[in-house]
Amino acid sequence: MKKNILIINGPNLNLLGTREPEIYGDVSFGTFLHNLESKIQDYARVTYYQSNSEGGIIDFIQENSSEADGLVINAGAYTHTSVAIRDALANLKIPKVEVHISNVHRRESFRHHSYLSPVCDGIIIGMGLDGYEYAVDFVLSVDPE
Amino acid sequence: MKKNILIINGPNLNLLGTREPEIYGDVSFGTFLHNLESKIQDYARVTYYQSNSEGGIIDFIQENSSEADGLVINAGAYTHTSVAIRDALANLKIPKVEVHISNVHRRESFRHHSYLSPVCDGIIIGMGLDGYEYAVDFVLSVDPE
Amino acid sequence: MKKNILIINGPNLNLLGTREPEIYGDVSFGTFLHNLESKIQDYARVTYYQSNSEGGIIDFIQENSSEADGLVINAGAYTHTSVAIRDALANLKIPKVEVHISNVHRRESFRHHSYLSPVCDGIIIGMGLDGYEYAVDFVLSVDPE
Amino acid sequence: MKKNILIINGPNLNLLGTREPEIYGDVSFGTFLHNLESKIQDYARVTYYQSNSEGGIIDFIQENSSEADGLVINAGAYTHTSVAIRDALANLKIPKVEVHISNVHRRESFRHHSYLSPVCDGIIIGMGLDGYEYAVDFVLSVDPE
Amino acid sequence: MKKNILIINGPNLNLLGTREPEIYGDVSFGTFLHNLESKIQDYARVTYYQSNSEGGIIDFIQENSSEADGLVINAGAYTHTSVAIRDALANLKIPKVEVHISNVHRRESFRHHSYLSPVCDGIIIGMGLDGYEYAVDFVLSVDPE
Amino acid sequence: MKKNILIINGPNLNLLGTREPEIYGDVSFGTFLHNLESKIQDYARVTYYQSNSEGGIIDFIQENSSEADGLVINAGAYTHTSVAIRDALANLKIPKVEVHISNVHRRESFRHHSYLSPVCDGIIIGMGLDGYEYAVDFVLSVDPE
Amino acid sequence: MKKNILIINGPNLNLLGTREPEIYGDVSFGTFLHNLESKIQDYARVTYYQSNSEGGIIDFIQENSSEADGLVINAGAYTHTSVAIRDALANLKIPKVEVHISNVHRRESFRHHSYLSPVCDGIIIGMGLDGYEYAVDFVLSVDPE
Amino acid sequence: MKKNILIINGPNLNLLGTREPEIYGDVSFGTFLHNLESKIQDYARVTYYQSNSEGGIIDFIQENSSEADGLVINAGAYTHTSVAIRDALANLKIPKVEVHISNVHRRESFRHHSYLSPVCDGIIIGMGLDGYEYAVDFVLSVDPE
Amino acid sequence: MKKNILIINGPNLNLLGTREPEIYGDVSFGTFLHNLESKIQDYARVTYYQSNSEGGIIDFIQENSSEADGLVINAGAYTHTSVAIRDALANLKIPKVEVHISNVHRRESFRHHSYLSPVCDGIIIGMGLDGYEYAVDFVLSVDPE
Amino acid sequence: MKKNILIINGPNLNLLGTREPEIYGDVSFGTFLHNLESKIQDYARVTYYQSNSEGGIIDFIQENSSEADGLVINAGAYTHTSVAIRDALANLKIPKVEVHISNVHRRESFRHHSYLSPVCDGIIIGMGLDGYEYAVDFVLSVDPE
Amino acid sequence: MKKNILIINGPNLNLLGTREPEIYGDVSFGTFLHNLESKIQDYARVTYYQSNSEGGIIDFIQENSSEADGLVINAGAYTHTSVAIRDALANLKIPKVEVHISNVHRRESFRHHSYLSPVCDGIIIGMGLDGYEYAVDFVLSVDPE
Amino acid sequence: MKKNILIINGPNLNLLGTREPEIYGDVSFGTFLHNLESKIQDYARVTYYQSNSEGGIIDFIQENSSEADGLVINAGAYTHTSVAIRDALANLKIPKVEVHISNVHRRESFRHHSYLSPVCDGIIIGMGLDGYEYAVDFVLSVDPE
Repeated sequence: MKKNILIINGPNLNLLGTREPEIYGDVSFGTFLHNLESKIQDYARVTYYQSNSEGGIIDFIQENSSEADGLVINAGAYTHTSVAIRDALANLKIPKVEVHISNVHRRESFRHHSYLSPVCDGIIIGMGLDGYEYAVDFVLSVDPE
Repeated sequence: MKKNILIINGPNLNLLGTREPEIYGDVSFGTFLHNLESKIQDYARVTYYQSNSEGGIIDFIQENSSEADGLVINAGAYTHTSVAIRDALANLKIPKVEVHISNVHRRESFRHHSYLSPVCDGIIIGMGLDGYEYAVDFVLSVDPE
Repeated sequence: MKKNILIINGPNLNLLGTREPEIYGDVSFGTFLHNLESKIQDYARVTYYQSNSEGGIIDFIQENSSEADGLVINAGAYTHTSVAIRDALANLKIPKVEVHISNVHRRESFRHHSYLSPVCDGIIIGMGLDGYEYAVDFVLSVDPE
Repeated sequence: MKKNILIINGPNLNLLGTREPEIYGDVSFGTFLHNLESKIQDYARVTYYQSNSEGGIIDFIQENSSEADGLVINAGAYTHTSVAIRDALANLKIPKVEVHISNVHRRESFRHHSYLSPVCDGIIIGMGLDGYEYAVDFVLSVDPE
Repeated sequence: MKKNILIINGPNLNLLGTREPEIYGDVSFGTFLHNLESKIQDYARVTYYQSNSEGGIIDFIQENSSEADGLVINAGAYTHTSVAIRDALANLKIPKVEVHISNVHRRESFRHHSYLSPVCDGIIIGMGLDGYEYAVDFVLSVDPE
Repeated sequence: MKKNILIINGPNLNLLGTREPEIYGDVSFGTFLHNLESKIQDYARVTYYQSNSEGGIIDFIQENSSEADGLVINAGAYTHTSVAIRDALANLKIPKVEVHISNVHRRESFRHHSYLSPVCDGIIIGMGLDGYEYAVDFVLSVDPE
Repeated sequence: MKKNILIINGPNLNLLGTREPEIYGDVSFGTFLHNLESKIQDYARVTYYQSNSEGGIIDFIQENSSEADGLVINAGAYTHTSVAIRDALANLKIPKVEVHISNVHRRESFRHHSYLSPVCDGIIIGMGLDGYEYAVDFVLSVDPE
Repeated sequence: MKKNILIINGPNLNLLGTREPEIYGDVSFGTFLHNLESKIQDYARVTYYQSNSEGGIIDFIQENSSEADGLVINAGAYTHTSVAIRDALANLKIPKVEVHISNVHRRESFRHHSYLSPVCDGIIIGMGLDGYEYAVDFVLSVDPE
Repeated sequence: MKKNILIINGPNLNLLGTREPEIYGDVSFGTFLHNLESKIQDYARVTYYQSNSEGGIIDFIQENSSEADGLVINAGAYTHTSVAIRDALANLKIPKVEVHISNVHRRESFRHHSYLSPVCDGIIIGMGLDGYEYAVDFVLSVDPE
Repeated sequence: MKKNILIINGPNLNLLGTREPEIYGDVSFGTFLHNLESKIQDYARVTYYQSNSEGGIIDFIQENSSEADGLVINAGAYTHTSVAIRDALANLKIPKVEVHISNVHRRESFRHHSYLSPVCDGIIIGMGLDGYEYAVDFVLSVDPE
Repeated sequence: MKKNILIINGPNLNLLGTREPEIYGDVSFGTFLHNLESKIQDYARVTYYQSNSEGGIIDFIQENSSEADGLVINAGAYTHTSVAIRDALANLKIPKVEVHISNVHRRESFRHHSYLSPVCDGIIIGMGLDGYEYAVDFVLSVDPE
Repeated sequence: MKKNILIINGPNLNLLGTREPEIYGDVSFGTFLHNLESKIQDYARVTYYQSNSEGGIIDFIQENSSEADGLVINAGAYTHTSVAIRDALANLKIPKVEVHISNVHRRESFRHHSYLSPVCDGIIIGMGLDGYEYAVDFVLSVDPE
């Protein structure tokens, strides 16, 4: 049976590919996701969600996590301010990976701390969109408990 | 005339009774609320609201507080990050009580600070669902100005 | 068999009802305690102790806790400075509740931190003398292990 | 051609004129805005938005900024907690002004820091509703690049 | 009767227009002031003062404030270090506005804190020389007590 | 009628005159006090108390302050650690002066902060035993409210 | 031979008696000084200096200290910011007393730290103009080395 | 002539051997002390004192130190809060050793700082009751000055 | 031509597979490396180095980086203390990835800060030995400048 | 069978006895060690190592700990900076004692923190070379698990 | 053509050679300067300025820097407090060197931080009056841009 | 007799002249040293050492300092992290100068603190290789004690 992977993008990440291409590249997330789904379609499918709303992300996690086998999240700016998303993630039993496209440690100091890192299993930073692909690969490689 | 009490639960608290029962017990908030309403039905009724959205909680407070005689709030993770909910509460003239089900002072240090405590009248921590009942009792015992 | 509840008040709390009535009300703690004891006399009795001395409070806890079924403490100013009272409380197996009459989070910042909160089960703040009554009620509601 | 100016108000600012008139005055924002629009109608128009939701404000900025010639924002309490709104503002090329009606430096210390100031061009504090008018005037005076 | 407005510039601001034009523009303060005085000459006049000396600024405030109807101050670097200028301003009963030509929140962190903000009524930052004009306008709009 | 002045010395101050004469001088506090009492005997008398116990000092203040016209306290090391003595002093309506014999600002940094200074009217530091005499003089010079 | 005592007042203290009488009283410093000089004229005289300029105070200390037998300084706001005045005082061999008229520990937190305290012999706070008199008395009582 | 060694235990240490044996072992301090005294009885004797009172410990040190040849102190929780005990120890000329039974650096962070370490000669941590024995051995090995 | 990838392991990482298998797994690094080299042998080869010495790691980087096309480093404990390794990495022009086998954000707080993150391009945390494989893949995917 | 005890000295400790005799005494470590070995030769032997190199100390621990029954370490300055030595010690199952010859709490504040204390069983400070002897005695007294 | 070098000394440095010779030596700055000028007279001359006034130093820099080829400044105590002097130096294009006669890192901690270091090119500390000579030599060795 | 000067360079400084010429210039340290030795060959010679290893630097200092008349050290990144090198330098009786080629106060904040400054006599920062020459000149100018 195919595994179901949640991929979640936080605020402002819907603009990927159209704004700040020198930082984030010029590939839209839609194109990237389409390619990723093709590669893994024999054994997994992706449920994708993007929102600018903190509450919306929590709603999505609550409503979808019981049917999921893994979760990849780039919470954008909420990474640094949201205890609520942390709580929503904290007791999910599935593998969870936090992703950041750019190297946040080269940016403002308030972006160096993540509320999510301690409740995720893995963290990937600064590897562009490839980071999502490694994250999905890792999530698929974990045996269910 | 019956008093009207607002009870507000913040993010992730809709999962009470189904997740982490070792921390929060296995009674759902619905069952608890039903019992509480029965006890006080001769002199008070409850308007209940839960949301994962910070803005949603503020909307609810603005729309309902003018008709309310008291307010009990467990803002969950927003307790520690939301200046906006604090502002929404700050100049309500009705009695306000902050409640936490578990003892937040035994958890991570970022849960030890509350933006809401200075603008509430009373605070109850670590007494499980009983905390809501004491809070309602306190609110009802305050004479209107 | 009746339960035995310890109620402990720390420094300056012997002046309750005679000083700063606008903050603490004008009911003396003696009168309040008398009423409380009447209400619960069928199933519990109270051992009350007040002291201005840090060491005196520790002595009292050591000498009385083995015969006690619960403890309610308002350590006053020692709340913020006494590691020694914390240690005396830390490994008592009975239910313990920390009480503050006024909302300490509306006062000076050095009153916002409590050494006792992590070693108590519940905390009640800002509810006047009612806080003691809720605390006793909570303590009596806990089943012995 | 008329310029298009965005004016954004954050949480609790929909209550202007009806609550805390001693701080914010008794003129409603609607009345103020109507007068402002009359003054500038020959060369500019205003798109106004108020929301209690952090995500809602980000959505509005994303959807309207490409058609705008300037932006005036009073993010209320989100000023002090929202990295996400900062990110939404950061790479807009239009002139941006941050406004606060009251002097936030006379209030609690957590209101002294703004995540938005470094990504805005100008900041106006403590000048009441006049601050919005100066902000609009400044925005209109900037030549397009 | 015409109102009398004090405008005070602090250290290094006598070099405006001749140094760092990319930051401060190439209009000298003298030219700007001349234009401003023309605009308001029917109902107000300006007493202008610039000094590199902290004590000189205090002397000026003491000697001129009793005859003044409003005050606009850009204290330059003294903004961040002078408790003494703050004290000189603190109990003037006239409207006071703090101005900064550039956006100090985009510069070094020691420029983010101002000793003067809590004792002024309004603050304007990053709007170039226009900031002085808005400040004068605001000061003139305040009714005398 | 003679005024009644309380003079209180905290821990280790009973050793004055016998230990560390290079710091504290070689006059015993008894001798000093005897001389002071002679000078003021026509219009005042002194009630003196020394204790190494924090609780003892609080007991003394509670039991004697209602009959006192002024209070002089050198709380020694408790100056830096006792919120409880601060609370005992805070709402006495009589003039209160804090005294330190040596210049505490030349000693370890933890002696630079005093919990008592904000609740006393005057503070005298580093003037040896003369500091007590100035303090008594000041207390006697204050008119009763 | 008469002793020569320097009394120095820092910025804004020239306004004593005319501004903020509720804090500083309504006696001008001139009147106070005249009375003080009368009392001590048989054995001492005062050289008085007030300046709003940090450099001016340092100049005065350098030019007058070799002829002085003692120094009393209320540096006003420079107390909290001037390392330079501290240096000017540091190696004078005469007795030095720091005075503050009001209790600075009841005011803003940036007034709680003094750069001068470690280099003065005595400190007197919150005793009004009497503080200067005690300071002069102390300075006169010290035997020359 | 036999040496006289003071051994002082602070708050809650009277419960050694009866509470928390998994941390402190099950040997009572009385038994341990009896054995220690036997071993050293030919050349030394012990004066033992335990108290829950900070002031009591200071009294004991003041009254016994002049007749003592060495001092061993486990101040328990007062280690971390008592400037007063530090002062009492600071100018004793005899060898002084601070002892902790368990490794305090593996416990809460507020137990990592000791006010007593800088004024003791040696410190022994985490070696159980053996730590007292090594401390006594060290004290006896020091030659009198 | 084959690319040359440097893989560097810091102190204590030579014990991988033999110590703490519950944290690091029971696969030795040698076995893992052998498999990795097989997979990539057509287009890349690995130069591997492990050392417990900070200086040794710097020597290795200096001597090998000019011939390398990419670098993967798990500096172990030196991650948190070594400015010198940071400097050695800082101006290499090849792609650099920092790897940690376990999730360091779930361990002691001094492991949450990395001196190396700002000078690496990517960071992978908590993904076990797979992290090295993703890192190598990323390094190979970067086009030479 | 004889027990094997490792004794490790860190940087600069090879100079013991020849430099700073007023702090460290004039006995060389060689002489001290020779005497210690004589005393314990019937039941234990010592493997001694000194190095100025952080990596060298880690190498020694890795290569010798499997054959050791206990470890005594004075890491000198590396005590305060080496997470790597801490990691090397952390999961050894043998008894470990940290020793410092002088009282580090009387020296610069950066010497007050030790990375090693939480991973050692016991700590001995300020007892000169005797500290090593007590440490060895303690290590020998622990029963193997 | 001869180069023109500014040498600036801050507050209290006019006393060099007459006060604290054990720290600063007994050579007056005048004598030193005379010798220095002789050495360099063929290719450079010195414009020297000393002031106790922060504003005076800023005035001097503003009035002389356009004709100068280099600047050497020992700002004394203003080094640690003056943002205004920093601003005056910040955009001079000539070589600038900060000098301190004594080793400020061996004095009080508030002297360890310099506002001027980031805006100077070189810094020389603790080398006595030779430091000025090295500074002048360095300034002369820089080629004009 | 010729004086013997030690010059020590820390990690990564062996790459001087070949890497980052825009920061460090394009002269290799070997060439610079050769010229320096020529200049001083009549009265001094240099013993030069470079190492990437903290322990190696300490070894060198221990083995060579007894024959040396002065020491010049640029410890590179170890400046900011090595207490051990500080200890090695601390009680050498010869003149010691700390050198940094670039202005470390313009770089990251962790480069602003030096463990070595308080144990050196002079410090030279930001003067390129000339800094070494001034340092050697200073060392040679100090008379032996």
